[in-house]
Amino acid sequence: MKWALICGSSGDIGIQIAKDLANQGWSLYLHYAHHDERIKQLISEFNQQYPRQDFLAVQADFLTADCASKLAASIFGLDAIIFAQGTTYYSLLNAFPTEKIDELLTMQVKTPMLILQKLEAKLAQSNAGRIVFISSIYGKTGSAMEVPYSAVKGAINTFVRAYSKEVASMNITVNAIAPGAVDTQMNQLFDQDTLAQIKSDIPVGHIAKPDEISYWVISLLDERAGYMTGQTLFVNGGWLD
Amino acid sequence: MKWALICGSSGDIGIQIAKDLANQGWSLYLHYAHHDERIKQLISEFNQQYPRQDFLAVQADFLTADCASKLAASIFGLDAIIFAQGTTYYSLLNAFPTEKIDELLTMQVKTPMLILQKLEAKLAQSNAGRIVFISSIYGKTGSAMEVPYSAVKGAINTFVRAYSKEVASMNITVNAIAPGAVDTQMNQLFDQDTLAQIKSDIPVGHIAKPDEISYWVISLLDERAGYMTGQTLFVNGGWLD
Amino acid sequence: MKWALICGSSGDIGIQIAKDLANQGWSLYLHYAHHDERIKQLISEFNQQYPRQDFLAVQADFLTADCASKLAASIFGLDAIIFAQGTTYYSLLNAFPTEKIDELLTMQVKTPMLILQKLEAKLAQSNAGRIVFISSIYGKTGSAMEVPYSAVKGAINTFVRAYSKEVASMNITVNAIAPGAVDTQMNQLFDQDTLAQIKSDIPVGHIAKPDEISYWVISLLDERAGYMTGQTLFVNGGWLD
Amino acid sequence: MKWALICGSSGDIGIQIAKDLANQGWSLYLHYAHHDERIKQLISEFNQQYPRQDFLAVQADFLTADCASKLAASIFGLDAIIFAQGTTYYSLLNAFPTEKIDELLTMQVKTPMLILQKLEAKLAQSNAGRIVFISSIYGKTGSAMEVPYSAVKGAINTFVRAYSKEVASMNITVNAIAPGAVDTQMNQLFDQDTLAQIKSDIPVGHIAKPDEISYWVISLLDERAGYMTGQTLFVNGGWLD
Repeated sequence: MKWALICGSSGDIGIQIAKDLANQGWSLYLHYAHHDERIKQLISEFNQQYPRQDFLAVQADFLTADCASKLAASIFGLDAIIFAQGTTYYSLLNAFPTEKIDELLTMQVKTPMLILQKLEAKLAQSNAGRIVFISSIYGKTGSAMEVPYSAVKGAINTFVRAYSKEVASMNITVNAIAPGAVDTQMNQLFDQDTLAQIKSDIPVGHIAKPDEISYWVISLLDERAGYMTGQTLFVNGGWLD
Repeated sequence: MKWALICGSSGDIGIQIAKDLANQGWSLYLHYAHHDERIKQLISEFNQQYPRQDFLAVQADFLTADCASKLAASIFGLDAIIFAQGTTYYSLLNAFPTEKIDELLTMQVKTPMLILQKLEAKLAQSNAGRIVFISSIYGKTGSAMEVPYSAVKGAINTFVRAYSKEVASMNITVNAIAPGAVDTQMNQLFDQDTLAQIKSDIPVGHIAKPDEISYWVISLLDERAGYMTGQTLFVNGGWLD
Repeated sequence: MKWALICGSSGDIGIQIAKDLANQGWSLYLHYAHHDERIKQLISEFNQQYPRQDFLAVQADFLTADCASKLAASIFGLDAIIFAQGTTYYSLLNAFPTEKIDELLTMQVKTPMLILQKLEAKLAQSNAGRIVFISSIYGKTGSAMEVPYSAVKGAINTFVRAYSKEVASMNITVNAIAPGAVDTQMNQLFDQDTLAQIKSDIPVGHIAKPDEISYWVISLLDERAGYMTGQTLFVNGGWLD
Repeated sequence: MKWALICGSSGDIGIQIAKDLANQGWSLYLHYAHHDERIKQLISEFNQQYPRQDFLAVQADFLTADCASKLAASIFGLDAIIFAQGTTYYSLLNAFPTEKIDELLTMQVKTPMLILQKLEAKLAQSNAGRIVFISSIYGKTGSAMEVPYSAVKGAINTFVRAYSKEVASMNITVNAIAPGAVDTQMNQLFDQDTLAQIKSDIPVGHIAKPDEISYWVISLLDERAGYMTGQTLFVNGGWLD
């Protein structure tokens, strides 16, 4: 039985990854920060659909100092970690609240590093360990109004490349998936005109559905995927690239 | 029934792609230039194993001017093209034979463009058309002793990005797979010491087996892969990158 | 009279940038955290050599919360900021002290953002404002033993790209210089054998002298350089790339 | 006295490079294919302005097989080569004339390689040899309607990286400058509306003037620039990147 930890499994991309992995036979640690009810319901559905797999809720707040310890205490066997937590914040840099900069750095860069410190040894026992970050096309091209978000996603894209070299000999791969525009809550801020404009700029002609992103997570978790490491896969429909 | 054309299907990577696609239920046009016997045998094996699929040999020389026409004349329905033809040549640039430069440019850049001109309309009818080039990590990092080879692979990596924008609205994706060192004939020039040195430089600790490359071709050909286009996937075990 | 703020002007690269800019006629704010004496002496030399330019010491600790305010309070006219502060720390990620991760993120990502928030309006008045970060080749390729350092340099490389879009209309450019190995204190940890090994891996055959890096800072600060923005210039002698 | 060969010195970017280099004290080989009169006049102006430098016209057609020999026969001392020749052609790939594909590959990839074969030894004698290609942002991002052009520019961007490794030990650097939109004849096809649209998409707010590009050629030719090699510098005003 293979076990994956999905950080941020109550978000739109996280839920889809959970569904796809459950469907592939994985047992799951479903991490969440606040959406207790949503995770409970997901687990109840999974328990019915996949009675031979295990599904455990793991609550932890990536903004607290003990997050890594708390999370690690709930994890036994482990074959894969997917970092899908985190959101963005829109503002010109010159008006960006300091606490929002702190939050972005902590949630997406620092806390994941602390978690990996705790879980690396467990992943090494898998002999086909997998680490996948959900990054963003903005981690490469950068976006006005989301400058600190772009910077932390850039940090992730380089992090996977650097860290992959430390753990390659343990058969752990470390990669990122960088979506373009995805049909999630995060984009519901935009009005219809803005969305229509974005859509017309995307060569493929539509905003990604979460399963068009999670497909690549599944591909990276496969045992045959062990020769790809340190990479960021851009899944953007040709947009902004 | 889905049909794929594999250009260079008698090479080590091409054969593996053929086997994996046959195994996934595809019918295949098996292109080759010279290895008549090898392809005949492959087809005979496939016919036994997969009696409900079709396997057709297509002979054409990528160095001749009528290659695209000849090839196109043999193709009916088509859902995917994989360009796995071509080899390299070792020399310092200042001693590189002009005809070898010509060969590299013709086989890997010009002839594929001419073939796509002929087959684009057929791929468009698929509604989930796929084009995949086997490129190389050298198309990004560049290699001494293989400068023109590096340049043509760089051309391919940009070609997929540019061309993907012309055909995205027809639901055709265009991507490249860029392997690092692969265990093929192409590397049998190297002596054991050189191979041991390369191996020790690869974070993942071994030279890729062809199926570690073909896995990504299969992933790109999947119907769920439609949101990735214009990309080059580096499958290099962390090497040279 | 043009004014530049050099953050980290007591480091080996910072000092060289200061010397080259002074030589080009710039007045300078020489920021430092701890090396009081070194900066005093530098200023005394500059005052003798360049009596018509001004040289002001500015003390501030990038690890303290009020750094940006303190620094901004000392700045009047301003045409360019160079971020050359910061160092690295060697450890496998799984043993990396949390406070060192914090320090790297704060010194190289967070505090520079807070400083730019305060100084953007002043740079805008220049009408040819320039922001230059000293990044690293590791911000692209990533390095084992320096994973968090690689990640923060990756953050910087994307930051310049994102932020450049917010300030382009004010004629401010934002770029980074990413050196390979440079002959500084930071590399004096290495023994002679390691340095000889690095040297033999560098195509250009030597470790960079600080003026081979500062040359590109000078080039970016030139008024004719206004069409380059959002870029990271790799100055690595062909190493690791 | 330093000597530079400018290939394509009758084009808008080539002329500007010639002017800037003449102004910096260089003697020049001014290569052209057809614009005899334009080059004669340029030389006559240079002879008046810079009587102590030498300016020689060199005619050769990059599309002919003997171009490299013909050109090399006219070259004595040589410290730098700038490849600024070549143009584009607009068409969807599926209607792109085969001879236009051939022209692009020959002019921008094959003939430059053959020329470098002949001139490498002369550049090595300089002890600070410089090779600079004028590439394009499309060599990275790729453009619909200019797919083969994008591909050859991609070939150039990788070529500089690969070839730089072969000649680094001779103190020759090899780099490319990749402009965005430049105010040249090549863009005079576009109507005013298209140009206004492009302009509004460029963060820096204007189409580059040729001297905003040539500035970077001058920077790369400087003796202090020897530590940068194998790079492509994007000079695009933040556009398409």
